[in-house]
Amino acid sequence: MDNWLNRVRVVLCRPEGALNVGAVCRAMKSMGLRELYLVSPLPFDNDEVFKMAIHARDIYENAVVTDSLEEALGDTALSAGITRRRGAKRKWFSILPEELAEKSAALESGITALVFGNERTGLDDNELNLCNIACHIPTSPEFPSLNLSHAVQIVTSVFYRKSIGEHTGAYNPITREELDNLVQVIHDSLDAMNYFKAADRFHTDRYF
Amino acid sequence: MDNWLNRVRVVLCRPEGALNVGAVCRAMKSMGLRELYLVSPLPFDNDEVFKMAIHARDIYENAVVTDSLEEALGDTALSAGITRRRGAKRKWFSILPEELAEKSAALESGITALVFGNERTGLDDNELNLCNIACHIPTSPEFPSLNLSHAVQIVTSVFYRKSIGEHTGAYNPITREELDNLVQVIHDSLDAMNYFKAADRFHTDRYF
Repeated sequence: MDNWLNRVRVVLCRPEGALNVGAVCRAMKSMGLRELYLVSPLPFDNDEVFKMAIHARDIYENAVVTDSLEEALGDTALSAGITRRRGAKRKWFSILPEELAEKSAALESGITALVFGNERTGLDDNELNLCNIACHIPTSPEFPSLNLSHAVQIVTSVFYRKSIGEHTGAYNPITREELDNLVQVIHDSLDAMNYFKAADRFHTDRYF
Repeated sequence: MDNWLNRVRVVLCRPEGALNVGAVCRAMKSMGLRELYLVSPLPFDNDEVFKMAIHARDIYENAVVTDSLEEALGDTALSAGITRRRGAKRKWFSILPEELAEKSAALESGITALVFGNERTGLDDNELNLCNIACHIPTSPEFPSLNLSHAVQIVTSVFYRKSIGEHTGAYNPITREELDNLVQVIHDSLDAMNYFKAADRFHTDRYF
């Protein structure tokens, strides 16, 4: 089955920090994303990248380097600039990561690009204008500044959650009647085992 | 008004990395959390911490250091161990960050502790047993390893989102009839301004 997450690309515009790029690789892989594009990156010390990427170094090794954001977005169907700003030709709407994940998951084909800006300056106007849509991560107005890899981690985490559904395990609510019956069976069984006399406090105090 | 987030504490058990602790401070403050407890931390190079904390250094400066997790949890009403594991006296349920935020927000008083383990080894059995509940961050089974500060960022982000509600701006859906009327008014107005002849492509191509 087509896993929609396989069609989600992370694009870093003008990244500067090797440690950040490594941390982005780890953040991506932990959330099931694999495709990284680096637009006009500085030359990186690979050892620094790998130090933070740990077992996600393959993401860096397979990263595509482009000279321009146009190139990195050329084959995409949906591109979102992750930013607190709206740009000069302002985006009138900036959606939430959850809303972006909804849109991306609804695409039956085509690549979604998550576009992140430089660590210090973020996305510039031109970069944001090249994106279809703006997306922002809600933060405290007192200190809205997120580390690049942390921003990637939040958005990719939301995407991963969307891909696995609302609950991580199968969850089938049962009726009150079924629940009461279940409790009765458990209680009777424990009673038959003499549990209520035998159980010591050590083994039960963390039960509830 | 009581902001429930002011009653949420981050507890780091046996943290080793000064950079990690700094990054945790930044992650917390960006999501409106202020109270940090450090249980048996190594002695940290403060400059390293501040390098990553940036303007969140006050969180580190005000952090409470304790010798034991018991001490750090003594005055809490709800404590959650953030972990992939379940412990020896296993927690039978491990909830999602969103579910934990629901529980925490529902407390009318009392402190919620978000308990994170050591960077390399995570929470040990004893630490997890001291918590009321386990909470896990869904990750890709291929690479489930999260950096400590990234784990803190994801959970605190979910808490912040819970605190500001589902939508960041007021959103009042309108009826189809109202929408049609609105579109008509906009269209008529633009037409009256001779917009459709005057507008050049440059200014409209990013409109839709």
